[in-house]
Amino acid sequence: MGMDRAVVLLSGGMDSATLLGYVVRELAVSRVYALSFRYGQKHTRELETARWQARAAGVAEHREADLTALGDLTAPASALTGAARPVPDLRDLTAAERRQPPTYVPHRNLAFLSLAAAYAEAVGAADVFYGAQAQDEYGYWDCTAEFVARLNRLLALNRGRPVTIHAPFAAKSKADVLALGLRLGVDFARTWSCYRGQAKPCGTCPSCVERAAAFRKAGAPDPLAVSI
Amino acid sequence: MGMDRAVVLLSGGMDSATLLGYVVRELAVSRVYALSFRYGQKHTRELETARWQARAAGVAEHREADLTALGDLTAPASALTGAARPVPDLRDLTAAERRQPPTYVPHRNLAFLSLAAAYAEAVGAADVFYGAQAQDEYGYWDCTAEFVARLNRLLALNRGRPVTIHAPFAAKSKADVLALGLRLGVDFARTWSCYRGQAKPCGTCPSCVERAAAFRKAGAPDPLAVSI
Repeated sequence: MGMDRAVVLLSGGMDSATLLGYVVRELAVSRVYALSFRYGQKHTRELETARWQARAAGVAEHREADLTALGDLTAPASALTGAARPVPDLRDLTAAERRQPPTYVPHRNLAFLSLAAAYAEAVGAADVFYGAQAQDEYGYWDCTAEFVARLNRLLALNRGRPVTIHAPFAAKSKADVLALGLRLGVDFARTWSCYRGQAKPCGTCPSCVERAAAFRKAGAPDPLAVSI
Repeated sequence: MGMDRAVVLLSGGMDSATLLGYVVRELAVSRVYALSFRYGQKHTRELETARWQARAAGVAEHREADLTALGDLTAPASALTGAARPVPDLRDLTAAERRQPPTYVPHRNLAFLSLAAAYAEAVGAADVFYGAQAQDEYGYWDCTAEFVARLNRLLALNRGRPVTIHAPFAAKSKADVLALGLRLGVDFARTWSCYRGQAKPCGTCPSCVERAAAFRKAGAPDPLAVSI
């Protein structure tokens, strides 16, 4: 693509770590601006891995933006930001909950992307990379290709140079993303997926189950694995 | 409309003060959640007036969300959040700058609206009111009816109850909004428009000039007026 600069949303999970590797090594973007958020999530394990990944990739800059206000506003409605709702196990999700799980944080990803687009505009980048991935067993409306397409139609109204959001994994399975990450040399011991954020991954939350299935399909051992 | 609850974006300027009056008195929404932001703007005069307006309107709740991160990220690119660029006088704006002025804060309004939508979802409201107004002499892409229409097409993808953004003033002139506010009894002495935020309005920045023209057209004295 010949981009000289781009912003990458970096959560510290498997998908965004792979995305960062993809942008730095495969697309060879010369100046990469990584952006992570403290948004009132119940644990910050993934922020530690985000920092590690940013350092390892040699980004031009890694910013951690404080979006605690999002956690404060959404606490009554999300298991990731509020104490009132526990993180569920995947096996306990109903069919309706698999389409919009209790771990959904209202409008979080749009808030992240609007700040990423603001950052891009400020540093003169026209491109933002977003690690949204089509989950296999559950999902979120703001991780779909259609979400990104409609967001880009909105951002195109910018009267300066519009920012475009790229979600190269939106149609990929988790196993496909993992395979790409392994090929790119991503260190998955330095990624965090578990929604619970204790000393070890719980193995039963939706994100842990999805991660384990991806490693099984890829025929690779998960360096963070626990018996599940 | 028969809404029982709604979120109102409240900056403390003329338009949002009128919007709040419109939602509370004209639409008779029973539980109104007002939302303001500290986003690294150079002055907080308008936050003081926002607080006053929220109290006077008797809202159910008024939240001030900390979005300082937006100011930090956009400081190099905006006269409202960065020290590098001064606030210009309206008369000095070129034609291109009137379409995207130096006072544009990259993707600010999208960030505000995504947090307002998050707040709405958390309190069980399906409606967010946004005081965007079609400026007469200069403007911003994120204050247009088309921006709101495209944003609503994006938000409609929500698999729960989608939030809808309403911008009832998007096609109105500033003088029309002022006339409505005067009819609703809005106290414009308790609104702040000046981009510079000194002890008195400067009278020459784009926002001051626009405000003065609106009062002239409405044939009413501006309680904050200075000789310009």
